[in-house]
Amino acid sequence: VQVFDRMNEWWSLPRGRRNAITDVAGTSVGNATVTAGTARTGVTAIRPHGGNMFAERVVAGTAVLNGFGKSTGLVQLQELGEIETPILLTNTLDVPACAVALNQAAIAENPGIGRDAPSVNPLVLECNDGILNDLQGQHVTPEIAGRALAVTAPEFEQGTVGAGTGMRTFGLAGGLGSASRRVGLGDKAFTLGVLVQSNFGSRSELRVLGRRLAPPTAPPQGDNGSIIVVMATDAPLDSRQLNRLAARAAPALGRTGSYMGHGSGDIAVAFSTANRIGPADGAITGHVARFADEHLDPLFLAAVEATEESVLHAMWFARSRPGYDGTTLDNLRDLLGGTPP
Amino acid sequence: VQVFDRMNEWWSLPRGRRNAITDVAGTSVGNATVTAGTARTGVTAIRPHGGNMFAERVVAGTAVLNGFGKSTGLVQLQELGEIETPILLTNTLDVPACAVALNQAAIAENPGIGRDAPSVNPLVLECNDGILNDLQGQHVTPEIAGRALAVTAPEFEQGTVGAGTGMRTFGLAGGLGSASRRVGLGDKAFTLGVLVQSNFGSRSELRVLGRRLAPPTAPPQGDNGSIIVVMATDAPLDSRQLNRLAARAAPALGRTGSYMGHGSGDIAVAFSTANRIGPADGAITGHVARFADEHLDPLFLAAVEATEESVLHAMWFARSRPGYDGTTLDNLRDLLGGTPP
Amino acid sequence: VQVFDRMNEWWSLPRGRRNAITDVAGTSVGNATVTAGTARTGVTAIRPHGGNMFAERVVAGTAVLNGFGKSTGLVQLQELGEIETPILLTNTLDVPACAVALNQAAIAENPGIGRDAPSVNPLVLECNDGILNDLQGQHVTPEIAGRALAVTAPEFEQGTVGAGTGMRTFGLAGGLGSASRRVGLGDKAFTLGVLVQSNFGSRSELRVLGRRLAPPTAPPQGDNGSIIVVMATDAPLDSRQLNRLAARAAPALGRTGSYMGHGSGDIAVAFSTANRIGPADGAITGHVARFADEHLDPLFLAAVEATEESVLHAMWFARSRPGYDGTTLDNLRDLLGGTPP
Amino acid sequence: VQVFDRMNEWWSLPRGRRNAITDVAGTSVGNATVTAGTARTGVTAIRPHGGNMFAERVVAGTAVLNGFGKSTGLVQLQELGEIETPILLTNTLDVPACAVALNQAAIAENPGIGRDAPSVNPLVLECNDGILNDLQGQHVTPEIAGRALAVTAPEFEQGTVGAGTGMRTFGLAGGLGSASRRVGLGDKAFTLGVLVQSNFGSRSELRVLGRRLAPPTAPPQGDNGSIIVVMATDAPLDSRQLNRLAARAAPALGRTGSYMGHGSGDIAVAFSTANRIGPADGAITGHVARFADEHLDPLFLAAVEATEESVLHAMWFARSRPGYDGTTLDNLRDLLGGTPP
Repeated sequence: VQVFDRMNEWWSLPRGRRNAITDVAGTSVGNATVTAGTARTGVTAIRPHGGNMFAERVVAGTAVLNGFGKSTGLVQLQELGEIETPILLTNTLDVPACAVALNQAAIAENPGIGRDAPSVNPLVLECNDGILNDLQGQHVTPEIAGRALAVTAPEFEQGTVGAGTGMRTFGLAGGLGSASRRVGLGDKAFTLGVLVQSNFGSRSELRVLGRRLAPPTAPPQGDNGSIIVVMATDAPLDSRQLNRLAARAAPALGRTGSYMGHGSGDIAVAFSTANRIGPADGAITGHVARFADEHLDPLFLAAVEATEESVLHAMWFARSRPGYDGTTLDNLRDLLGGTPP
Repeated sequence: VQVFDRMNEWWSLPRGRRNAITDVAGTSVGNATVTAGTARTGVTAIRPHGGNMFAERVVAGTAVLNGFGKSTGLVQLQELGEIETPILLTNTLDVPACAVALNQAAIAENPGIGRDAPSVNPLVLECNDGILNDLQGQHVTPEIAGRALAVTAPEFEQGTVGAGTGMRTFGLAGGLGSASRRVGLGDKAFTLGVLVQSNFGSRSELRVLGRRLAPPTAPPQGDNGSIIVVMATDAPLDSRQLNRLAARAAPALGRTGSYMGHGSGDIAVAFSTANRIGPADGAITGHVARFADEHLDPLFLAAVEATEESVLHAMWFARSRPGYDGTTLDNLRDLLGGTPP
Repeated sequence: VQVFDRMNEWWSLPRGRRNAITDVAGTSVGNATVTAGTARTGVTAIRPHGGNMFAERVVAGTAVLNGFGKSTGLVQLQELGEIETPILLTNTLDVPACAVALNQAAIAENPGIGRDAPSVNPLVLECNDGILNDLQGQHVTPEIAGRALAVTAPEFEQGTVGAGTGMRTFGLAGGLGSASRRVGLGDKAFTLGVLVQSNFGSRSELRVLGRRLAPPTAPPQGDNGSIIVVMATDAPLDSRQLNRLAARAAPALGRTGSYMGHGSGDIAVAFSTANRIGPADGAITGHVARFADEHLDPLFLAAVEATEESVLHAMWFARSRPGYDGTTLDNLRDLLGGTPP
Repeated sequence: VQVFDRMNEWWSLPRGRRNAITDVAGTSVGNATVTAGTARTGVTAIRPHGGNMFAERVVAGTAVLNGFGKSTGLVQLQELGEIETPILLTNTLDVPACAVALNQAAIAENPGIGRDAPSVNPLVLECNDGILNDLQGQHVTPEIAGRALAVTAPEFEQGTVGAGTGMRTFGLAGGLGSASRRVGLGDKAFTLGVLVQSNFGSRSELRVLGRRLAPPTAPPQGDNGSIIVVMATDAPLDSRQLNRLAARAAPALGRTGSYMGHGSGDIAVAFSTANRIGPADGAITGHVARFADEHLDPLFLAAVEATEESVLHAMWFARSRPGYDGTTLDNLRDLLGGTPP
């Protein structure tokens, strides 16, 4: 998808074929949407690769830009620099249901967990969708989360779907968004893809490709949302480098008009599919590919561009649908008269 | 309780009346133990004060000494320097059940959560009790966690009870342990109390009051457990100072013989009951008591002593009972012939 | 100064009277410029208040956005949440000369330092001005740094002066820049001011108020500079809150076109003048004003706007002058035909 | 040196041949001592390898256990996970002189620094030796630091020498101390060595191999010193793993009786000599050896034991000599009657 085309005018780097996180080979995404009754919520699953994540962990990093959030799994990710389950995104109060789903799926694949193998670290991130969703209803069950895990694929829907169902972004309908960038380095080429669950920003601060759409209010509006940014790359980065990559979500959010509000859980997670970490198997040392820090700049720029475009996609593909109490949010596509700038 | 009496020989600071975390006025502890069938597990609840925690948060800090752990709630604690629910301790796979219990209890007391109030950040910490407990059974339900919350009191049991039921410490039976210290500063007096869920250490490295009980093995034994250290104080510390206090768990663990093993989730949380943070109520600034950093040393020493003694208590009060597969651990009391050194 | 006027179109918050960091009462800035021979460098001094900083420390925080930098003093700032000397900015290799100047000035005012008082923690931040300055010449002496300290005042020059003398920003002449914002909260009003030493960015990524001035290159240009962001406020924030404030430099940099390059030391420091911390004087606890986190959003937005405008000012006020080897950089004013957008 | 022999009784792991940091092949240490007039200070240099450190950086990590310290160089070490100069230890006020020495030595070897190469990040750590040394005299010059760099060798003196000259440890004469441990893993063997500049602890809290030497005082004594712990290993650890290793200094300090006092700058730095990082040379990716985290436990234990023994050596080898104002400290050897326990 290339809605916000403006290549060379606003953007600098070429997009991947799908312009989505799944341009990173092996990475797949699946959604389960829950809209029955007062529910306006769901789950989005990201699989870094199609195999057994506990048996073949991926190297990972994170940046907690503003930690007003209820994620689970980040403490161990920071210590070990690894992700060992698929990543689930959902609403704030349904993090436990998703953690249960990941634990059970991991045990099903790895019966030794908690017995002759260590325990497993489920990674669940969230945004508060209480504007549209009856959050207290806790509509997501482990079974629903399992459905998202079951349908991951290279092609997936963006906008008002899965964990993006109840999102609000800059006061407009928000949702899931994705984008990717390709960087050529010498004779090598790497891909970086991003997926966001986008629920942040105050209406009057929105910038679309540098253009402000609404004047400020006095006093300025708060920013009580959250945004989860998941970055995938096939470049062989270690966890320190992936922490650095994840931190580049902050300038990207700034480009869209965010000031990273107090009440916004702005968290980025980044992983590399290039080096997989196997189980403890007696081998004390192995060899891994190592990316030179001196060459990170194109990847850092790719992270900024793909994150910014993902946020724009989240708004563009979001539809205006009544929330559980009738609240309906405007959407960006209508606001722009159906024509991206 | 004053099992390991050795005042002035090993210890430097006087104990509180109960020699427990509940010497900090208002703080209470409750246990729910689950031993039916293959379960050897449970939940321990710590209430920093007896009121509505979401409406009156306590200032808090944390130190992740070794982040091989599946806690939930630490990201927001680090950002905001507050705890807004009671603290629950349990086994690794039952963190989600405890988070659900905390969410539901908070909503029951504060019906606006996720509607006109922000969402709530449940704080759940854990150790892996898979040596004695059938961890995969996920025996803890939100109802069981609710029972621990319902029975918190100033007096509570230590050892093989609540979240301490399935613990192993230095290869021996472990469990819950608690201790406290009092420090006089000028004409003021403060109390610091500690509670540990103790599940760490390798048998041959144990030191009891500086005395090693078993010779080393070659190769050295691993340390795959975990220890959760909860510190409470009535000194008016801010979150930065409470982060510093929590970090003093590390030298305390060293005194018992820990090297903070790779697979051990060694995490400390500290809170002060002196300054409570109310809900957003229009007040932009208030006044809080502020402790001078120059006077922290006695509190730091108190944190070290109370943490070390809590670990000893966890082992002393633990009973040897067969695990789900028949495994039975020796206990410290027998090892010492019933006489503390 | 109101060069980039665009109030309500690009900016949301009103400026302070001087539109400079010195709109925060008591804060002053002084420059010493060194351009003799091959030198194109200097020192900028920021005094949080006009008194003895060691005797009356200010509460402070920091955010290391990208730690490719050679600052000194940040480790203790992070631990204690305080600044106890004026802040000096200079070039990379002259950090030691500035640290000596701060140490000597502190000793002159506080003869007990290192004797009956603790030692002092000099705070020096830097950018690499090697494009224009003969960096290896190490032209800054403690005496020159002392000159910057001696001339601090509420009025000060921006652009190619002091520590800004040899700066390059987005490939153009850079330098010192400053701006401020005022926020009204209920019946209270607070000021936030920023000063930047601006030496970062790649030419083709520059955005001025959302407008890109040059197309991208392939491969993308590196970003090897650095930017130091100093934020001052009279709002009574604690160190945790000032860490949060400092982190808002990242979205601001994103708005100007930065992707926080690998080789760029992007570091922000923030202090509050509202609560001063006296020397250890026997008092164990005192009372301090405390800002409610729920009201931080306007200050966060102020931090973003004042940082972005400071970078624009750094470029606007910079003059194109030949470097030590003849290199001359274009400047933004000429590029824009003398008319700000 | 095997003063504190007690193998298998207190210690678990075998020592290296020299029982010093220089058991790690290639690592060397040199001292320059300054005792003329009122000076009781000096410089200690550690070279991770004998080559050009800027051209062949070593992978490194750090743990700031208590950041009351004035080190320089840690910010970039944390970002890049590398050390690119030798490490210098000195007194608090002479950090700048040592930084100048490192900068000049790096430029002499690498004339492109600050021109066609990036700038250099000098790493200098310190303790406050103001009890014995006339700290304000700032007796260390870049030339003296250069002398320490010039004499690094596998054999070096411990105790009251170099940066250890003016140290006080647990109220006794302190100084430099070193120790090492060997770990066998499968068919591989690795060495870990430690060097400490030891200036911390309160007299009444000292424990020597678990034995307390003096009763407590009321109120407890403060701990205003500092300790710098430098760890070297030939195991191929990455920077994340070296951060973990450095953190094991905390339990080691606890074993000696430290509570990590407020005023004590307790900082550990760890490096691996196994993977060297060359200059930016066009190569985007290379291959490095990678140690499996599952096998870290023996190295963690080695870090604890070698750090503890280094502190004991620092005291054992320290001589009681009058300070600049006549202050003379007792020493451990006399206190123990010349016989180690």
